[in-house]
Amino acid sequence: MSNTKPRSDEMNGAESLVHTLLANEVDVCFTNPGTSEMHFVAALDHIAGMRCVLVLQENVATGAADGYYRMRGTPASTLLHLGPGLANGLSNLHNAKKAGSGVVNIIGEHALSHIELDAPLTSDIEGIARPVSHWVQTSASAADVGTDAAAAIKASMVAPGQIASLILPSDTAWTEGGVAHGAVQKPAPLAYDNSVLDQAAAVLDGPETLLLLGGSALTEGNLEMAGRIARKTGCAILSEWANARMERGAGRVYVGRVPYPIDAALEVLKPFKRIVLLGARAPIGFFAYPDKPAILTREDAEILTLATAGADTTAALTALASATDATGTPPAHVVTPALPDRPSGPIDVKNLAAVIARAIPENAIVVDEAITTGRAFSPATKCAPKHTWLNNCGGSIGYALPAAIGAAIACPERKVMCLTGDGSAMYTVQALWTMAREELDITILVFANRSYRILRGELANVGVQNPGPRAIDMLSLDRPALDWVEMARSMGVEAQRVDDCAALEQALDDGLKSGGPNLIEVML
Amino acid sequence: MSNTKPRSDEMNGAESLVHTLLANEVDVCFTNPGTSEMHFVAALDHIAGMRCVLVLQENVATGAADGYYRMRGTPASTLLHLGPGLANGLSNLHNAKKAGSGVVNIIGEHALSHIELDAPLTSDIEGIARPVSHWVQTSASAADVGTDAAAAIKASMVAPGQIASLILPSDTAWTEGGVAHGAVQKPAPLAYDNSVLDQAAAVLDGPETLLLLGGSALTEGNLEMAGRIARKTGCAILSEWANARMERGAGRVYVGRVPYPIDAALEVLKPFKRIVLLGARAPIGFFAYPDKPAILTREDAEILTLATAGADTTAALTALASATDATGTPPAHVVTPALPDRPSGPIDVKNLAAVIARAIPENAIVVDEAITTGRAFSPATKCAPKHTWLNNCGGSIGYALPAAIGAAIACPERKVMCLTGDGSAMYTVQALWTMAREELDITILVFANRSYRILRGELANVGVQNPGPRAIDMLSLDRPALDWVEMARSMGVEAQRVDDCAALEQALDDGLKSGGPNLIEVML
Repeated sequence: MSNTKPRSDEMNGAESLVHTLLANEVDVCFTNPGTSEMHFVAALDHIAGMRCVLVLQENVATGAADGYYRMRGTPASTLLHLGPGLANGLSNLHNAKKAGSGVVNIIGEHALSHIELDAPLTSDIEGIARPVSHWVQTSASAADVGTDAAAAIKASMVAPGQIASLILPSDTAWTEGGVAHGAVQKPAPLAYDNSVLDQAAAVLDGPETLLLLGGSALTEGNLEMAGRIARKTGCAILSEWANARMERGAGRVYVGRVPYPIDAALEVLKPFKRIVLLGARAPIGFFAYPDKPAILTREDAEILTLATAGADTTAALTALASATDATGTPPAHVVTPALPDRPSGPIDVKNLAAVIARAIPENAIVVDEAITTGRAFSPATKCAPKHTWLNNCGGSIGYALPAAIGAAIACPERKVMCLTGDGSAMYTVQALWTMAREELDITILVFANRSYRILRGELANVGVQNPGPRAIDMLSLDRPALDWVEMARSMGVEAQRVDDCAALEQALDDGLKSGGPNLIEVML
Repeated sequence: MSNTKPRSDEMNGAESLVHTLLANEVDVCFTNPGTSEMHFVAALDHIAGMRCVLVLQENVATGAADGYYRMRGTPASTLLHLGPGLANGLSNLHNAKKAGSGVVNIIGEHALSHIELDAPLTSDIEGIARPVSHWVQTSASAADVGTDAAAAIKASMVAPGQIASLILPSDTAWTEGGVAHGAVQKPAPLAYDNSVLDQAAAVLDGPETLLLLGGSALTEGNLEMAGRIARKTGCAILSEWANARMERGAGRVYVGRVPYPIDAALEVLKPFKRIVLLGARAPIGFFAYPDKPAILTREDAEILTLATAGADTTAALTALASATDATGTPPAHVVTPALPDRPSGPIDVKNLAAVIARAIPENAIVVDEAITTGRAFSPATKCAPKHTWLNNCGGSIGYALPAAIGAAIACPERKVMCLTGDGSAMYTVQALWTMAREELDITILVFANRSYRILRGELANVGVQNPGPRAIDMLSLDRPALDWVEMARSMGVEAQRVDDCAALEQALDDGLKSGGPNLIEVML
């Protein structure tokens, strides 16, 4: 790090922070500030360039930062109110961490002299931050804030992206003597494992082999290289179940996902005696179950890691294409445009996928948290026009609405479709207000199955075959039914309810054309 | 601990947990379960006696447990889905911790063999729990679960109440060999500091002295003893700014609160050269500000701690009354019933307090998170019929709606009034659905000032006298305006909007008579 400006007595710590963020193009801040953050808020008044996005609950801020990074490739900041503000955003930081998203959290703290007094809002902020952060630091003085912020930004950009949490005692914010830091250099990704390259190339050339892709291997260009390798060697290609970002659609190389249900995953992976990992990890079960394996690959499978999630997957794929002599081969699995027929009648899980496939606009971003409803979406939508697909990578529900905010702010020229179950959407329903406030181009489909339907299956998976009324009651959302139309309108988002395919098609068309946030309650 | 049942092969860990909870009268569970908790859910199917209350976001569960303990005096349990489920409930656990509420958290975890695989939902659960917990433990086997649960329950009952977090790997839940534990003995509170009793009595008998009360000193009987001491010695009595539970109203001894704003608190505390603490801590500022003191008492004040929050305040007050020869003295500050006149016209902060004072029903529970709007409520409502008042003790907003759920479930025969700002209510707005589902007798007043109004004052407090549009925008909730009537109805709660005193009076009357949940949006 370099480029520190000369010390200036005309800048307080908060101002040095804002200048440092802006010098590093961290120019979006998702926030719900409080008293301890008022100097940061004040600094934004006279330093132009930061887009501040107000949220009504901090899990919206952190989830938005996740979505933003996935689409922009550079971090946003969050501004959070002490330990509790951080705590409220913790589960979407967990999701962001698992997705490999870079986030710069700025967490207000009491003045250093105040902490020992154990005021009501005092808590162990570093302790709360650590389980979801790769980097945690508390600034010791106003003069340190700029340098600390630069270190946080640098930490957030370690490939594929990391969670950096900078804790800012209020006196370090309000005291003069701040020193802004200039642009830091983005850390290079790790090298792929060149020592296994030849072995990987040889393995892929043999039978019963799989190239398993994840993370940054799922860009359009990288998928194309994987497609060439697949055609040349005859290997299969798949992606992980949850992908932070995948480029899909007509003209691109299609890659299926390892299924979520254990039995289906075992079936899909059973043929493969040799697996090369490229930005992916070896497939394991989302949960453990009595009498089911947790490792989803064959016991005798030989697994070779060519590139981890933090490695340069483009270099790895380029080298692998060269080593397999596939560089000039046309890619396999290129999708031809072929939309499904227009379905009609009441909506079910199958025709729903067809309606969505037909509706996805060119260049759309699809944020997917349609847990049970959405399992068929992936193959059904592969022939839609080119689009980008984001999965929940950490398993903590309530990621989709916030991530859609971040994606829309990162890419204002693209349309965002947000597909979410009703149970998931309720977790961070406050996100609707921010969408209205920022007039974001987001069309939300809430799949109203009025239950935590996935858990019905999970009860069976853990051996409960005939759940009684008390158990079923714990998994049901129908008493009372949620009215998503009223819910959305209460926060300024236009909404309608549909219960057949034609109405859904029309609603999607209207919503996507509207250019602003709108919600469609899909009755299932 | 004793009374362990003989080992039984017919019980799994989850069943031993449910039996242990029930043997200790921990018979309410606030929950949003997931896959890793399915065996607990299954156990509830065939073991009767646990009231399970489903919530749509875990901060509702933990806040409800806080309110429940304050009113019932015994802990409820929460059932949370791994690290993220705990994380979602963390900020209301912070509030519960600061309030001295006992809570038994049961947090599902992956099977022990699964943790090392680092699945998407894997996280450092103990690390997340520790900053808000007094007691954290992960069960190692099914045979340990009953004993561990008993230890958690015992930890939660350490006076005034503690947060106990029991982490339950799913294989310890599903494996046979569980051993239920019987009833544990409630730990006795700490003794008060008898060594300073005579000094405290002498101090109170002198001039310029204050008896500062907190925690369990605010019961009806304890307040009466404090009133006797006040009359006998001439000392002043006050309570802390935030009180977990205070008994108030006509016929009881009235105790004012140390004000929240620093300057007002300094003014109120300036006369006192000697202060005796009884269940309270020495007053400090909620936040630190440049150029304002954080310690609110006189620099030369002599402060004597007779009883901490965890001590036996009843014994301390009894001894103090005896030492000051006040036992037979009639109490000072007994409130005579005298309701304010019926106000009329548009609602403002002052006449709002009068309408509320006139509406509080005998024996009501008032949950107060009316941050700026509610500062005048405390004196204005003192003459209402006998009631109980609960404050937010941890400063993390979003406590009121969940705490109202817990209070209503703890005391089904009492009416609950929930007074909340709009900004605070949005934090845990999902609570409305649980109120409807459980048909709770809660009347909610949402004060719609459409801003984080407290922060306007805080900007000035940190020295920003003329905030510009970007700063003000960060503190405003009016773009778009929230429609609380639609919001409530979307979750099954009846609602109406009022903008004058007569309509508010009528709405309160209707709502309190309805016996079910209802919301009144009060336009300010």
